[in-house]
Amino acid sequence: MGYLGAIEGGGTKFVCGIGTADGHIVDRVSFPTTVPEETMARVCGYFADKSLDALGVGSFGPIDPNPDSPTYGFITSTPKPHWGNFDLLGALKERFPVPTGFDLDVNAAALGEATLGAARELAGCLYITVGTGIGAGLVSNGRIMNGFTHPEMGHILVRRHPDDTFAGCCPYHGDCLEGLAAGPALERRWGAKAAELPADHPAWAIQAYYLAQACMNFVLIAMPHKIIIGGGVSKQEHLFPAVRQRLSELLNGYIVHPRVQEQLDSYIVPPGLGDNAGLTGALLLAQQALHR
Amino acid sequence: MGYLGAIEGGGTKFVCGIGTADGHIVDRVSFPTTVPEETMARVCGYFADKSLDALGVGSFGPIDPNPDSPTYGFITSTPKPHWGNFDLLGALKERFPVPTGFDLDVNAAALGEATLGAARELAGCLYITVGTGIGAGLVSNGRIMNGFTHPEMGHILVRRHPDDTFAGCCPYHGDCLEGLAAGPALERRWGAKAAELPADHPAWAIQAYYLAQACMNFVLIAMPHKIIIGGGVSKQEHLFPAVRQRLSELLNGYIVHPRVQEQLDSYIVPPGLGDNAGLTGALLLAQQALHR
Repeated sequence: MGYLGAIEGGGTKFVCGIGTADGHIVDRVSFPTTVPEETMARVCGYFADKSLDALGVGSFGPIDPNPDSPTYGFITSTPKPHWGNFDLLGALKERFPVPTGFDLDVNAAALGEATLGAARELAGCLYITVGTGIGAGLVSNGRIMNGFTHPEMGHILVRRHPDDTFAGCCPYHGDCLEGLAAGPALERRWGAKAAELPADHPAWAIQAYYLAQACMNFVLIAMPHKIIIGGGVSKQEHLFPAVRQRLSELLNGYIVHPRVQEQLDSYIVPPGLGDNAGLTGALLLAQQALHR
Repeated sequence: MGYLGAIEGGGTKFVCGIGTADGHIVDRVSFPTTVPEETMARVCGYFADKSLDALGVGSFGPIDPNPDSPTYGFITSTPKPHWGNFDLLGALKERFPVPTGFDLDVNAAALGEATLGAARELAGCLYITVGTGIGAGLVSNGRIMNGFTHPEMGHILVRRHPDDTFAGCCPYHGDCLEGLAAGPALERRWGAKAAELPADHPAWAIQAYYLAQACMNFVLIAMPHKIIIGGGVSKQEHLFPAVRQRLSELLNGYIVHPRVQEQLDSYIVPPGLGDNAGLTGALLLAQQALHR
């Protein structure tokens, strides 16, 4: 019996690991994301001496997650140089002829959290990461919820905070959620990295308003059993009470259910798996591939 | 072999019908929704002389759609007088001891459209009705997508159209989607019923903007294979091109996929089943109950 291999392919770094069928990660490394040839050489080099039974990949997007499509396993229309239309899964399958699973990085993280993390007792969860960009994935009844392609929840529309004069920096939508609330938006609005802004900085009331609007729409559209906020922003513990409070005000008692009322403190939470949500999800994709 | 019974329970009227296992409706009647005793007497009276194998119900909400819950089958916290905490399914089961299915009216309509309507060749669809209120349901891979409860998509947040000074009329959220774009909002904003406003009235550009924002968020969060707009507004054929155009502008080329690019004309469409989407969905809920 070998290990399961897991890859969390991000725009900044690729995290690789091996683990067991029950989702336990036994080794983990990471490499900077440079050009595909170099990055894939390091990824393949890592797994070369591991005995793999299956391999799971959660990748930055946009990707093609549809197994029936001729471009299944590709990173597709990304603006990231060199990675557009790159056959990521194909490159791996050529080198490692084992069963593979492939999905979006945030979908994998949602699967990890729903199976072994903060939502492990529940039927599913929504995982949103707020970092260099904003992305989210949804798991319902143990299944990753893709439609005709994977979701792109980071680009939903939000209402501008009355104190916010920043134009937004999404190249497609200007002031969509990502354009107003991802790390680069905070940095450009305030002239400092989010991690350097103190907890009482006015940045955080604005940030909480935008994230609460996102949660409001997630609740009303998908009613996820839990909302897990990861990425750099989840290190800001003070943000969670503010987002909950704002969501409660926005919902205004309309949804009569304990999850979004008296249990709101346990409804919007940081990842139970910390920085391993995505890698654990990739491991679970490998496990699913093995049992298909 | 008897028939399958179907009920589409709305806030204004209850539509009842019988049909066959392949979704064909053979008879259909409707009664005004008054008080539960009276309405249920007429519903039960209609089915009394029919030989039913199973019964499916799509009901106005909020309801409890969770079969494991003690209040499964109830209409729950509705402000509609007399119907709050009414055990709708229980009242029917007492009278008709056959297998039953129960879900939200718009979920049933989405199931009808996904199975036999405008999305019958596809893996699912989102159905939104714009009438006295706004509600929507999502079907993915043939399954109705409820989370910890059914969705309440009519209350998502939208950005105000710059020409719109109407405050909104949702008692909970003021200017949420329903508060700005349901029939009563149009009537109060313009002093005339939507059906009386000519196609070149400025009302429609505003309406298209709000519905396009809803579609934008539905696409980004759920990527439904098709969006079907029903209810009174779907009779306004001129609205569809305007909503598609606005959605295209909002997405701004971000989602690279034919469904929301060159095939947009067939992506946002009126119901394939016309006014029978909900009743057909209820029939399919009965069919599912029979095969469980």
